[in-house]
Amino acid sequence: MRATVMYGAGDVRMETLPDPVLQEPTDAVVRVVRACVCGTDLHPYHSMPASAKGVPMGHEFLGVVEEIGTEVSGLKKGDMVVSPFAYADNTCEFCREGLHTSCPKGGFFAGAQAEAVRVPQAQGTLVPIPVGEDSPLLPSLLTLADVFGTGHHAAVKAGVNEQTTVTVIGDGAVGLLAVLSAKRLGAQRIILMGRHEDRTDLGREFGATDVVPERGDDGVEKVRELTGGHGTHAVLEAVGHRPAYDQAVGVVRAGGVISRVGVPQYEEAPVGMGSLFRPSVTLTGGPAPVRAYIDELLPDVLEGRLHPGKVFDRTIGLDEVSDGYRAMDERAALKVLVTP
Amino acid sequence: MRATVMYGAGDVRMETLPDPVLQEPTDAVVRVVRACVCGTDLHPYHSMPASAKGVPMGHEFLGVVEEIGTEVSGLKKGDMVVSPFAYADNTCEFCREGLHTSCPKGGFFAGAQAEAVRVPQAQGTLVPIPVGEDSPLLPSLLTLADVFGTGHHAAVKAGVNEQTTVTVIGDGAVGLLAVLSAKRLGAQRIILMGRHEDRTDLGREFGATDVVPERGDDGVEKVRELTGGHGTHAVLEAVGHRPAYDQAVGVVRAGGVISRVGVPQYEEAPVGMGSLFRPSVTLTGGPAPVRAYIDELLPDVLEGRLHPGKVFDRTIGLDEVSDGYRAMDERAALKVLVTP
Repeated sequence: MRATVMYGAGDVRMETLPDPVLQEPTDAVVRVVRACVCGTDLHPYHSMPASAKGVPMGHEFLGVVEEIGTEVSGLKKGDMVVSPFAYADNTCEFCREGLHTSCPKGGFFAGAQAEAVRVPQAQGTLVPIPVGEDSPLLPSLLTLADVFGTGHHAAVKAGVNEQTTVTVIGDGAVGLLAVLSAKRLGAQRIILMGRHEDRTDLGREFGATDVVPERGDDGVEKVRELTGGHGTHAVLEAVGHRPAYDQAVGVVRAGGVISRVGVPQYEEAPVGMGSLFRPSVTLTGGPAPVRAYIDELLPDVLEGRLHPGKVFDRTIGLDEVSDGYRAMDERAALKVLVTP
Repeated sequence: MRATVMYGAGDVRMETLPDPVLQEPTDAVVRVVRACVCGTDLHPYHSMPASAKGVPMGHEFLGVVEEIGTEVSGLKKGDMVVSPFAYADNTCEFCREGLHTSCPKGGFFAGAQAEAVRVPQAQGTLVPIPVGEDSPLLPSLLTLADVFGTGHHAAVKAGVNEQTTVTVIGDGAVGLLAVLSAKRLGAQRIILMGRHEDRTDLGREFGATDVVPERGDDGVEKVRELTGGHGTHAVLEAVGHRPAYDQAVGVVRAGGVISRVGVPQYEEAPVGMGSLFRPSVTLTGGPAPVRAYIDELLPDVLEGRLHPGKVFDRTIGLDEVSDGYRAMDERAALKVLVTP
């Protein structure tokens, strides 16, 4: 089958790899109908050391079940399914608490920007969706695999509700869907920090009431001005770079929550009297257990109330996947949909 | 009046200072009946640069109202009152949310290890207590000024309940009262990390089910052994030094909460993939808004169900306050009660 392999920073290739097969009785094989490129994929695209072997890429997909292991029930060949970016058994103590990303039998997908993918723990992982391969809802359904669930996770962990004011840091797909999620949870005031106007325009459509293009101290000052000097109760950090963390500390209200879903590209950061402790700020977040949220978010997509798929602004085939990475890296595309 | 003044590391003196007087119409003056020395006082006791002027010490007290400003209602001369270590108006938006330590009109007390103290925002700060100056409950009531409320805050912010397993780091007064608070909130499994056996014995009396005297990696390994390898849902960090933070990261369960109430003596610490983010750990805490908890905790003390005053193991007069600091610093005393 054709599949996307990264060989180092900036070096993404379409290759022919062996077709995936069942390896465990809990596996399934899914033919990929839609995949996409994630902001997270850009981190190795910037920094991965050259590798002779390469790494299969992609962790977001929906598709059709082609083969099922003997211990998988609840799924059948031909089912259309969406998959969270992390597989999990959906039965252990962590999954029961909604923390699928800490399932001891779980892990993160790689290799979904391809014609097919092997799915471990298929029964706990895959969620059937009642649509056909030609459904116009596919882009929005695909966001349930990661970016919508991740934005929602940021908002949930920050305790967003009708009473909370919200700042979202980052105008990538996750940031914009964090806006949509905060709006969905009832937030009345949502400040989006981002400087790409086409993106922040979509952010406004998703529910942002204010846009702050300034960064760093200027951006912090602007958010403080907008909030009577206090900052916002919730800060959803959807970037992962250290300046975004510092910005979050700058705009969070005393007693508020910084909820991080951008994968941190740093290890140490300020947490003491001068940053988190004195103002009683809570720091939370992590890799989103999107499986836990699909049941809740799916009806809003299927019934057309929400259109998270608007984050896709370019569609490519597998042959063009290298161009897709470049376009996202250059901010020429917000999020790239892949049709194998 | 006589009062305690610190002139530098290790240099605590009893001095004669002017009697406190009303300065604002929202003030009261309280004659101190009981005060005490706090673990927090040991930080400047270790590191304060020499000062010719000196700093009045002490932030925990209960006493008798002697004078009341014209804008103070709900209090009268002769009332016995307990005071939280931070004054606050108890009416602003932060106080209404229970975050009295972020009240814009608030601040932290200094100078309570003395015969009398001026109390700003007296109406919002002081809480009448229905006991006399000779009540045997005074030591337990005094813990409502800081250490019991602070231990309780740690447990509340960590979400402790019947289902959560708990680790408490630190066997000082706050750590031991964090144990008592976790027990009070229903925790069944409470692991106390501390190595002073007289203190950990009191911790067992307060509800600790396990004691781990080991520190660092050994201590982390021990807690992991006790919890099936997972660590505990809640970690209450009552020390404030960086090794305690690292220990907290080591023993917290995936999806769990580190709740800090020890004043951090560091600013930067690990928060990235290798520490908080990958296991979805939440970091919370801050200076405890103990005023918010007095109404809830007071009945348990007045009605004799809880005895947090057991943390006091030495009683001194003001003349001996320098000895009191030394005894706490040398771990010869757990917590020193001062009777002016």
